[in-house]
Amino acid sequence: MKVMTVQSLALVAGEGKLPEEIVSRLAGNNQPPVVYALGGSPDRFRSLGAVEVIPLVSPDLDFLIGDVSKRGVKNMMLAGRVPKTLMYRPEILGESLGKLLQELESADDHSLLGAIVSAIESAGIMVMSYRDVIPDLLAPAGPVAGRAPTASEMEDINYARSVAKVLLPLSFGQTLAVYRRAVIAVEAMEGTDMMIRRAGDIVGRGVLVKMMREDQDERYDLPTVGPSTLKNMAEAGLACLAVEAGRTIVLCRKEFSHIAREAGIAVWGIS
Amino acid sequence: MKVMTVQSLALVAGEGKLPEEIVSRLAGNNQPPVVYALGGSPDRFRSLGAVEVIPLVSPDLDFLIGDVSKRGVKNMMLAGRVPKTLMYRPEILGESLGKLLQELESADDHSLLGAIVSAIESAGIMVMSYRDVIPDLLAPAGPVAGRAPTASEMEDINYARSVAKVLLPLSFGQTLAVYRRAVIAVEAMEGTDMMIRRAGDIVGRGVLVKMMREDQDERYDLPTVGPSTLKNMAEAGLACLAVEAGRTIVLCRKEFSHIAREAGIAVWGIS
Repeated sequence: MKVMTVQSLALVAGEGKLPEEIVSRLAGNNQPPVVYALGGSPDRFRSLGAVEVIPLVSPDLDFLIGDVSKRGVKNMMLAGRVPKTLMYRPEILGESLGKLLQELESADDHSLLGAIVSAIESAGIMVMSYRDVIPDLLAPAGPVAGRAPTASEMEDINYARSVAKVLLPLSFGQTLAVYRRAVIAVEAMEGTDMMIRRAGDIVGRGVLVKMMREDQDERYDLPTVGPSTLKNMAEAGLACLAVEAGRTIVLCRKEFSHIAREAGIAVWGIS
Repeated sequence: MKVMTVQSLALVAGEGKLPEEIVSRLAGNNQPPVVYALGGSPDRFRSLGAVEVIPLVSPDLDFLIGDVSKRGVKNMMLAGRVPKTLMYRPEILGESLGKLLQELESADDHSLLGAIVSAIESAGIMVMSYRDVIPDLLAPAGPVAGRAPTASEMEDINYARSVAKVLLPLSFGQTLAVYRRAVIAVEAMEGTDMMIRRAGDIVGRGVLVKMMREDQDERYDLPTVGPSTLKNMAEAGLACLAVEAGRTIVLCRKEFSHIAREAGIAVWGIS
């Protein structure tokens, strides 16, 4: 029976801290996963309790599905960052993924991720949500870290939410920088870090609001913030961060809270 | 009577080619304007036929309205670029403009421009459209320069239009970079050039669609493209530009067409 449990879950792990947090919690719950490591050092997962770590040199879908099926594993989680530009280098993708990419109606990274998940599920493997594994990493409603937002920051948060409400169905715009009810910068494919730097260069103050796009799947694609988000904000002069309560992962909470306090940044969970 | 005509029109001239084109056409139509030059060399306007050129060291609204009124000039045009970050340096603005800025509900540059125009009109000066002065500079519908868009570029143009339709009422998002129905980059306050470079860094191909925001006033705030737009696009790998017919200024048309042909860029007027 032990062996069955051990082999019951696979984690496809991208870059960043999140896959590590998931592996250590799964191992702690006596559900150590088989990890398919895309980028980064595979060793970190072994020391955290993974049953086995298989390095993925490239995101080869055929190999992944074949290997998972061979092991009789029926459940899979996907976590961590995959470089967004991967989809524009079809030469490094496996045959199935390259073909998927050609057939996609939109070249958006979330369309690609959705197509990959469909292909995995067609092979009889269930893609599960990791939210229940990491409840302690999700942002609460209200105060998250640092000071509370000022009245004018709260106004800008609400303004950004009203703009985001219109954007989120459009498959981009998950992060907005706003100052005095004016949109300074909007994130599309460049990623949040570059967008924060841009807002810093243009205005050097304001609030950052990060929300989930409608096409993001809660099972494997939750917005994530961490110490580096706050460090970038502090450098850019942005002093307030609002995230969606229960739908945002806050990585390295202790360090995160420390930086928020030190930098005078308000972090607020909107619900 | 000649003197009356000469003194009948003032042009507040920002940076770029557009104010020069307007001055030379007005002079050619026997309506040489008094030019208030904000940035750049004031001399260029003298040689193009301006009646008088008054350099504006800073955008001091009190001085401007006072001086225009003193001359008995009743009509004004505003043209050319004003650095977008000006509004975040209230210390260089005159008293009235600084106060306007404080009272604005939104710190958006277009809100500021709107407030400035209201202040000018409250002083009994009419802000006129320059469109009728430069009909030859407006983009036509259909082919504008270079080759025609491919079928897939036309699909991306239509996709970008559908996204822009949702964005334009939000007071940002006048320019979109799209590739295969995915939004690569959206312009907020950073300006089109920086956004083109970003799209180049991320994907290095795709179409650029530039449209007028709903809060842009056709009298003084038409979207503008020119040779530098195409040069930036060529460097970034974007090979198709779509603009709104009749509502977009194309500067230096001859050089523009030459670059479009040389760089293989399709420029298309959507109506």
